[in-house]
Amino acid sequence: MTLVLNAHDVDQAIKMPALIASIEDGLREDARGRANVPQRLNVTTDSGWLRVMPAVLNESGIMGFKAFQIMGGLGARYLIALYDVKDGVLLALMDASYLTAARTGATTGIGTKLLSREDSRKVGLIGSGLEARTNLEAICTVRDIQLVRVFSTTPEKREAFAREMAAKLETEIVPVATPQEAVAEADIVMVATNTGGRPDPVAFHGEWLQAGQHVSSMGSTMPRQRELDPETFARAERILVDSKAQVEEESGDVHEAMKAGVYDSDRVYELKQALVGEAPLRSSAGQITLFKSVGNAIQDLASGLAVYREAQRLSLGQDIGDFMDLKTV
Amino acid sequence: MTLVLNAHDVDQAIKMPALIASIEDGLREDARGRANVPQRLNVTTDSGWLRVMPAVLNESGIMGFKAFQIMGGLGARYLIALYDVKDGVLLALMDASYLTAARTGATTGIGTKLLSREDSRKVGLIGSGLEARTNLEAICTVRDIQLVRVFSTTPEKREAFAREMAAKLETEIVPVATPQEAVAEADIVMVATNTGGRPDPVAFHGEWLQAGQHVSSMGSTMPRQRELDPETFARAERILVDSKAQVEEESGDVHEAMKAGVYDSDRVYELKQALVGEAPLRSSAGQITLFKSVGNAIQDLASGLAVYREAQRLSLGQDIGDFMDLKTV
Repeated sequence: MTLVLNAHDVDQAIKMPALIASIEDGLREDARGRANVPQRLNVTTDSGWLRVMPAVLNESGIMGFKAFQIMGGLGARYLIALYDVKDGVLLALMDASYLTAARTGATTGIGTKLLSREDSRKVGLIGSGLEARTNLEAICTVRDIQLVRVFSTTPEKREAFAREMAAKLETEIVPVATPQEAVAEADIVMVATNTGGRPDPVAFHGEWLQAGQHVSSMGSTMPRQRELDPETFARAERILVDSKAQVEEESGDVHEAMKAGVYDSDRVYELKQALVGEAPLRSSAGQITLFKSVGNAIQDLASGLAVYREAQRLSLGQDIGDFMDLKTV
Repeated sequence: MTLVLNAHDVDQAIKMPALIASIEDGLREDARGRANVPQRLNVTTDSGWLRVMPAVLNESGIMGFKAFQIMGGLGARYLIALYDVKDGVLLALMDASYLTAARTGATTGIGTKLLSREDSRKVGLIGSGLEARTNLEAICTVRDIQLVRVFSTTPEKREAFAREMAAKLETEIVPVATPQEAVAEADIVMVATNTGGRPDPVAFHGEWLQAGQHVSSMGSTMPRQRELDPETFARAERILVDSKAQVEEESGDVHEAMKAGVYDSDRVYELKQALVGEAPLRSSAGQITLFKSVGNAIQDLASGLAVYREAQRLSLGQDIGDFMDLKTV
């Protein structure tokens, strides 16, 4: 049987702790050489593009892909297809629009667990969009956060964000008028912006950094997208990324840091290495640390698996039967 | 809305003439530079593999992919996802197991129209599996075939094939005990085998060729698969393939012909070139011609579009609504 999960079903089946745990499992599996993630595939159309990102997780028992397309002027749709890796049965088709933002948050949560101080209590958040919400939720899942200061350029947006997310996360959230106010005294800085088209696309400057801060950034996933300056890379003593090859290829922030000569690839490690003890982590309370992500298919499939399990538990979705014939070979 | 078409729905919605016409449209579009087909993507699992083949047809108005996986010892499942290229809506998800065999046949039909003599009446068929059926059906769609002689190694299979397909195609079909008997006096030779594991994997030998014959072959889509010998390539005066890069990379028959020094890439043209008048075709009744295919995503999507249209006309399938949210960007 194939379970179809629409946006509402997926929304109900997303549990941040389960997403984090499932992605950690997938990354550890990848670290052990038991996963398989080829280069993602992009195809352009007259007005947009289609991207297909397959992956195989032999131990988690799943394979499949995320497919998403952006049609210029309209928007994007995200689909995750999840197969049983042993018998090839299509287990689920699910809307992955909100889930993509949630898994980005969950991945930041893993980076936060690994790099931030355990006693972190204050978050400085730059950005108030969907990703700001999911990333903050994940940070609050892994650390006992008691105060969030949020900045975004439109006062109404940061105020609505503070109101809505304070209720959801049961945490004090204060909207502030400048990014400096948001990040000053923060233990954790979260940068989740879409500032690509602005005159100054840099949303966070390394000169604002304070001893002991952990910075996460997920808003520079294309060469033209920016949010961190090179100084941030220069001052970070530990850097983790989700996928080194993709971050170095795709992130405009990393490209600028490379140009400025402050990005040393040899001291940048991947999340999966950190999860199996193969990356240096924070060694003092005063160290500045950085986590940078662009997303990959293991995060998608592993979070899709968590959603599928929860949806089964809650009897969500529409069972459309086994609509594909098995062709014996 | 997304229409889910199971194997039975697709079976009812497959009309060979419509498949042929739709694939021709797609190939012409590709020839005009209006389609986009990246390299297919393979991911291995512990016991099999997953392949994703995306394509965009801007003028036909669709994009999407075929995804199929082969799990060792079990079998394969095929899925086609069809999107509207303009607004990105997922139009259909369909079982593509039988459809894959049907589109392979339809593609052979196009090659047959382009290369075989118009007055072809007799087919010599080697093979009696699913692809032998769909390829013969396509040949009978484009030519007025009056006699088919079929050979395959198991007498029961060739007899069942003759009985069943004679009823379906309303054509005389005679099972014969040797491949030579099948192809002697044939105007069109169709080789559709799966002889990879046999001591002699070559099912058709070039020394059997007669003046004026057109040969089609679709059973060597991996380096280890064989069905034609190099002599066939040496004697063919016109050669068309569906995708030159893929045929040269994937077909064991072509690899052997290359090794034997009888495969001249410069005189091999693609079906799409032939459809827009950019390939030399048969110029005399006595010429020997060859069509060789390995399949590509344009054939899949174009045939998926034909099936989708017919399914709509016949009100087939299960409408599962618009389960993916549009994320405005």
